[in-house]
Amino acid sequence: MEKKRTEISEYGEFGLIQHLTENIKLNNNSSRVGIGDDAAVLEYPEKDILVTNDLLLEGIHFDLTYTPFMHLGYKSAVVNFSDIYAMNGRPKQIIVSIGISKRFCVEDLEEFYGGLQTACEKYGVDLVGGDTSASLTGMLISITCVGEVEKGKAVLRSGAKENDLVCVSGDLGAAYMGLQLLEREKRVFDHAADIDPDFTGKEYLLERQLRPEARKDIVELLARKNIVPTSMIDISDGLSSEMLHICKKSNCGCRIYEDKIPIEYQTAAQAEEMNMNLSTAALNGGEDYELLFTVPLSMHDEISALEGIRVIGHICSKDKGSRLITRDGNEFDLIAQGWKAV
Amino acid sequence: MEKKRTEISEYGEFGLIQHLTENIKLNNNSSRVGIGDDAAVLEYPEKDILVTNDLLLEGIHFDLTYTPFMHLGYKSAVVNFSDIYAMNGRPKQIIVSIGISKRFCVEDLEEFYGGLQTACEKYGVDLVGGDTSASLTGMLISITCVGEVEKGKAVLRSGAKENDLVCVSGDLGAAYMGLQLLEREKRVFDHAADIDPDFTGKEYLLERQLRPEARKDIVELLARKNIVPTSMIDISDGLSSEMLHICKKSNCGCRIYEDKIPIEYQTAAQAEEMNMNLSTAALNGGEDYELLFTVPLSMHDEISALEGIRVIGHICSKDKGSRLITRDGNEFDLIAQGWKAV
Repeated sequence: MEKKRTEISEYGEFGLIQHLTENIKLNNNSSRVGIGDDAAVLEYPEKDILVTNDLLLEGIHFDLTYTPFMHLGYKSAVVNFSDIYAMNGRPKQIIVSIGISKRFCVEDLEEFYGGLQTACEKYGVDLVGGDTSASLTGMLISITCVGEVEKGKAVLRSGAKENDLVCVSGDLGAAYMGLQLLEREKRVFDHAADIDPDFTGKEYLLERQLRPEARKDIVELLARKNIVPTSMIDISDGLSSEMLHICKKSNCGCRIYEDKIPIEYQTAAQAEEMNMNLSTAALNGGEDYELLFTVPLSMHDEISALEGIRVIGHICSKDKGSRLITRDGNEFDLIAQGWKAV
Repeated sequence: MEKKRTEISEYGEFGLIQHLTENIKLNNNSSRVGIGDDAAVLEYPEKDILVTNDLLLEGIHFDLTYTPFMHLGYKSAVVNFSDIYAMNGRPKQIIVSIGISKRFCVEDLEEFYGGLQTACEKYGVDLVGGDTSASLTGMLISITCVGEVEKGKAVLRSGAKENDLVCVSGDLGAAYMGLQLLEREKRVFDHAADIDPDFTGKEYLLERQLRPEARKDIVELLARKNIVPTSMIDISDGLSSEMLHICKKSNCGCRIYEDKIPIEYQTAAQAEEMNMNLSTAALNGGEDYELLFTVPLSMHDEISALEGIRVIGHICSKDKGSRLITRDGNEFDLIAQGWKAV
């Protein structure tokens, strides 16, 4: 069945945003005034406030060839929630601004907002504002997330101390292998339009890439156990980059053990199938949205006992550098990979 | 003298943002942790918090042919401050995310950040975070502004009541005529590259377009006089659009008198020179960043006595519609002009 296509011009700017947001409700006490004014009004009398913003650009951060709008909306929200959890906070509000060209129709945006709202409901976040704009070149998304944290309890990147344990939640590299898989199928698809790709047995990789979750559960688990990390960051650019951010901000070095890095079976199998280096996927792949954090050495037994958390190394003095110890005992400097201008 | 050009690749992503932000200081008590973590940490124990976000896209919102980066930075910040003032608040923090292609060099971004910082210093705002990203297509800017307002004192769009006076600060249409002037000179320039345009006597129009100010002074003046508007909005899209926003949110209509709309001499002269309708510039031009607000009729004498504020009409019941009364006594419906998808 052909998908219905309603042109954005049928609504106009103001009609469009009203249409997309008319069913949005406010659930948090801190959300006083939501969508529809010059600014959202929030109230945080007894907490510290966290604010973060991310840009997501078509062709750089997402590819609409294989990303459904619903998933894009969900992921756009979740990656911002992840930044708030990485501060030991809880996300409460988001403001979503989008730029769109004529290529997109109202139904595309309904799906995108549907994904946003699903994420907001799941994580208890209110959508309180935003802006829409014409764009000359595809879709772009800017999400601002506001969250709260107990006064003075924000966990920064700068608190890691010598001998602290380096811990990571979940597993790494799966989102990157999911991306490789989608990119490969896209190339195949370009040459044979009637072949439907078979992703059986690779669902986990696709889900990690297309519909990641933020580690709300880990932040809540640590809080229940009264464990306050000395430093924390979420893994959006890859373990190496994030570890180096912590080391730089905390003025220290680290040792990470390759054989301790948690990797799922599907990730390893896909790397082998594609003849790719598995550790590269885990170290530099990015988009895992797992939490990377440090705790004092004295917490070793306590933290090791927690499900879903792995100790992967330790903090050392700055002069010893930030290094990976491989399975065969070699040492390599961790290397950060930022974006390059295109 | 040739401008120096340092490629962004010389710094890389993380070096670039550090280079651009290394001299940034925090001045507001509410700014606890600024640039360099997953989120900014803010503290607002006794105020309501205002949050707004704007997208500015090259080719849609700005043209780098005639917009210096310094001015672009300044304007990007100020238009966000304006949204906070329009809530009867004071801007305190901004978070700036930018997308850039290889076309841009480090010096361009230094100038842009220079403009941001000049605006921040002038308005007492801290730059507390942001993100940089590669872009396939020119420059894009996302600014989130956080501000404060006394508890319960935010002025919304929805509070206008029948018989309230409609007031506007400053004058209207100048930014739009400045844009027309720049666009005309750009066309001339395209055909004769060695002619330097002569803008003598038109400085006000250019300044209003390229380097607008937010009406901090008007919000402070109203506070000193103990005048709390019943509704308020800033004029970014033109008087008609903004007036219709107030009417819709407040469930009312209005009468605006064409001959009361404040217009500067340069604006009128330029409209005549270009054979354009002056009222169209004032009603639909936009980018004036003046404040449009309503006060109870009983404040007529008090508000009329204030310098820089003009009463231009009144609120009526919804069934009477939202109309402009022209100089010759005709009535026309106000018409909103949003963006169209391109």
